[in-house]
Amino acid sequence: MDRKIILPEDQMPRQWYNIAADLPNGMQPPLHPGTMQPAGPEDLAPIFPMPLIEQEVSQERWIDIPEPVLDVYRIWRPTPLVRATNFEKFLDAPVKIYYKNEGVSPPGSHKPNTAVAQAYYNKEFGIKRLCTETGAGQWGSALAFACSFFGIECKVYMVRISFEQKPYRRLMMMVWGANCVASPTDTTESGRSILALNPDSPGSLGIAISEAVEAAVASEDVPTRYCLGSVLNHVLLHQTIVGQEAKKQLEMVGDYPDVVIGCAGGGSNFAGLAFPFAQDKIAGKEIQIIGAEPTSCPTMTRGPFAYDFGDTVQKTPLLPMYTLGHDFVPPPIHAGGLRYHGMAPLVSQLVRDGIIEPRSYNNLETFEAGVNWAKTEGHISAPETNHALSAVVEVARQAKEEGKEKTILVNWSGHGIIDLTAYDAYLSGKLSNYALPEEEIERALKAIEGLPKPQ
Amino acid sequence: MDRKIILPEDQMPRQWYNIAADLPNGMQPPLHPGTMQPAGPEDLAPIFPMPLIEQEVSQERWIDIPEPVLDVYRIWRPTPLVRATNFEKFLDAPVKIYYKNEGVSPPGSHKPNTAVAQAYYNKEFGIKRLCTETGAGQWGSALAFACSFFGIECKVYMVRISFEQKPYRRLMMMVWGANCVASPTDTTESGRSILALNPDSPGSLGIAISEAVEAAVASEDVPTRYCLGSVLNHVLLHQTIVGQEAKKQLEMVGDYPDVVIGCAGGGSNFAGLAFPFAQDKIAGKEIQIIGAEPTSCPTMTRGPFAYDFGDTVQKTPLLPMYTLGHDFVPPPIHAGGLRYHGMAPLVSQLVRDGIIEPRSYNNLETFEAGVNWAKTEGHISAPETNHALSAVVEVARQAKEEGKEKTILVNWSGHGIIDLTAYDAYLSGKLSNYALPEEEIERALKAIEGLPKPQ
Repeated sequence: MDRKIILPEDQMPRQWYNIAADLPNGMQPPLHPGTMQPAGPEDLAPIFPMPLIEQEVSQERWIDIPEPVLDVYRIWRPTPLVRATNFEKFLDAPVKIYYKNEGVSPPGSHKPNTAVAQAYYNKEFGIKRLCTETGAGQWGSALAFACSFFGIECKVYMVRISFEQKPYRRLMMMVWGANCVASPTDTTESGRSILALNPDSPGSLGIAISEAVEAAVASEDVPTRYCLGSVLNHVLLHQTIVGQEAKKQLEMVGDYPDVVIGCAGGGSNFAGLAFPFAQDKIAGKEIQIIGAEPTSCPTMTRGPFAYDFGDTVQKTPLLPMYTLGHDFVPPPIHAGGLRYHGMAPLVSQLVRDGIIEPRSYNNLETFEAGVNWAKTEGHISAPETNHALSAVVEVARQAKEEGKEKTILVNWSGHGIIDLTAYDAYLSGKLSNYALPEEEIERALKAIEGLPKPQ
Repeated sequence: MDRKIILPEDQMPRQWYNIAADLPNGMQPPLHPGTMQPAGPEDLAPIFPMPLIEQEVSQERWIDIPEPVLDVYRIWRPTPLVRATNFEKFLDAPVKIYYKNEGVSPPGSHKPNTAVAQAYYNKEFGIKRLCTETGAGQWGSALAFACSFFGIECKVYMVRISFEQKPYRRLMMMVWGANCVASPTDTTESGRSILALNPDSPGSLGIAISEAVEAAVASEDVPTRYCLGSVLNHVLLHQTIVGQEAKKQLEMVGDYPDVVIGCAGGGSNFAGLAFPFAQDKIAGKEIQIIGAEPTSCPTMTRGPFAYDFGDTVQKTPLLPMYTLGHDFVPPPIHAGGLRYHGMAPLVSQLVRDGIIEPRSYNNLETFEAGVNWAKTEGHISAPETNHALSAVVEVARQAKEEGKEKTILVNWSGHGIIDLTAYDAYLSGKLSNYALPEEEIERALKAIEGLPKPQ
């Protein structure tokens, strides 16, 4: 059998799958940050263009992918589904492992699946500039890439510590024509308020989001909107092409997974692979769906399900989600990405519903999995992706202990060849397994005391 | 039509094509660096393992690819052949452009095609350690990758200026388990002799080759050999899988190129794509084959065809090739890779025979082509690869002027996402079109005065 299962371009899915239509217990509404009352589409209008707001609240199961988006997708999609035969041999367990290689996109991750869609809808809506934040830089470079195809200006607020440590991501954005600055900046109120407290702030995703939203809303020269690379319903929607392709590819070889695995920061690559299979699970199919997160930012495994702001300075609507509190920042020792304080509401709801099982993995085991992967499957994974590989290792070990055969499908969400400084830290013994003390989490959760509680 | 033409794994070529069997005028022999007499296989035995020496001198047209090599190839091969429809639109010329995407390999370039083969044959021959040099790091990381699959120790001498400017390539090698040091080192005689003249030497490929050869020959603890990533016949041989795949893929869509293009430093990616088409040209087919090199290191376009050493300190056999002299180092302003002073003897002979047409391109036009490519085709090319894209632009422009339709096949030899500092220099206006003065070249060529001349 071929290692690589290739879906012909003309069989690429032409609709996104909206799991909102199939949720067993529905969703709780977002709340307006001022009134704390359910927020409607009109509340989001200054931030997002109407077509994306419509997708955000849509209950339609299938949403057509516009032809110009499909055209750009065809640059790298359909992505290969690959049988990881070498890693299987290395694990010596009764498992078949298929990985969906989202690292083949020009920015090197799954992120352009939604970036291209968002750039397209903004363009159609007459928007001339997009503002966004980025952490490690995967999202910022994906949006820069997407904007270059639709002729939209792109401004990226990059978490300062990553801006300094990951110059290559910033340079990628520059090649595609975007403007990338280190956040916090002194050009927004949000940035200045953080710098006033700590002039040397390394930044955080929450802060960068605040800056990007503020810059988008305050822009007066050209029509400007904000873009988010994860968390929101419409972002997860756009990623579902990943799982749909994987399903078709498995059908081509007559297979179906027992276990579906993805790493989860905000939740988008995980949801992209998992939701089309969660649909089957909701309909009664027996299948295990694992979201892998870091022990240093254990949103789903140790945070409560609560209403919380999406950003640090409390400008965004409140979302019902697993959260560590909107001012949580993972400890500096954490090198594995996935640093967001919350989790996508759709993923959170499905965890609550027992459809999705969260697990957490520490620094050292994730890099160990990544190095073993590189030495067997060849490709160097993003540190984020290594969390998913850790879950693969755990499931395989368990299958071996139980003597049970398992078919595993994992989202290889991106390559790590511009995140190699994290591998350097691991290989030179500078990483350790920092365990987040209970009181750290309790302290962080103080930020959501007094906010409305979901039912 | 699909943009991507995918060859099924079971149709991957199972033999390499050896153009030595088809040369119209044969080859001149390499010369022993001591006696200046034709060098035989035994002269190479301390440096290379016998199976590779046999390939180096073989006259067999087809050489079987061993099964374990095919197994590793399958990690990323067959590589996609892609119709560059967006770049075609951008150029607005009557051309069809197909690019062979060799950037999908784990190290990101064509280099593992030969690295895997070399690691395999050395392993079979009982070798436990391989020494090599690397410039920008593509070759070193490819050999590190290959060695990790065959359990061979890998030591890489990396040109110091690249070692310092390109930490990511060194880190890639580390992830795959290799040991990478900055050349010149003080651990070899060759290195010490250079450091004695200039303690701050930025290094050069020629120096690093000298160090790696010396370290291989002098190793007494474990059986050690040297590996070269380009130039030699057996290296070019292993790359011919590229052109053979491309031929099959074009057949799948009923096409054949009018023009075949590759960038040429040592000549291996160019030869890999071009030789299977050169075979047709030698047999009478009308086809243009262009090797694109930098104006800052204009080996084929401005150097003489001469016998010269492969390295700086004159330890290797003399090869009959286009050369700028073995101590030529391109000016620091040159950011585009392809820095080797010579050119593969097989490529050189075919230039002499009129089968291959060399052209040269300058810094600015190559990066301009690369940025336009990134904004249309999405992928960011290696600076080396941008020379090939410049040739595509030139051919397309000419086709437009002449009103002639052309089908172009180009080797997209690698991605540039860890060579982004060169793009940074370009985009921030720090690059210029340094024109190498005639006296520079005359001065450099003094190094080969007094050496035997080819016929």
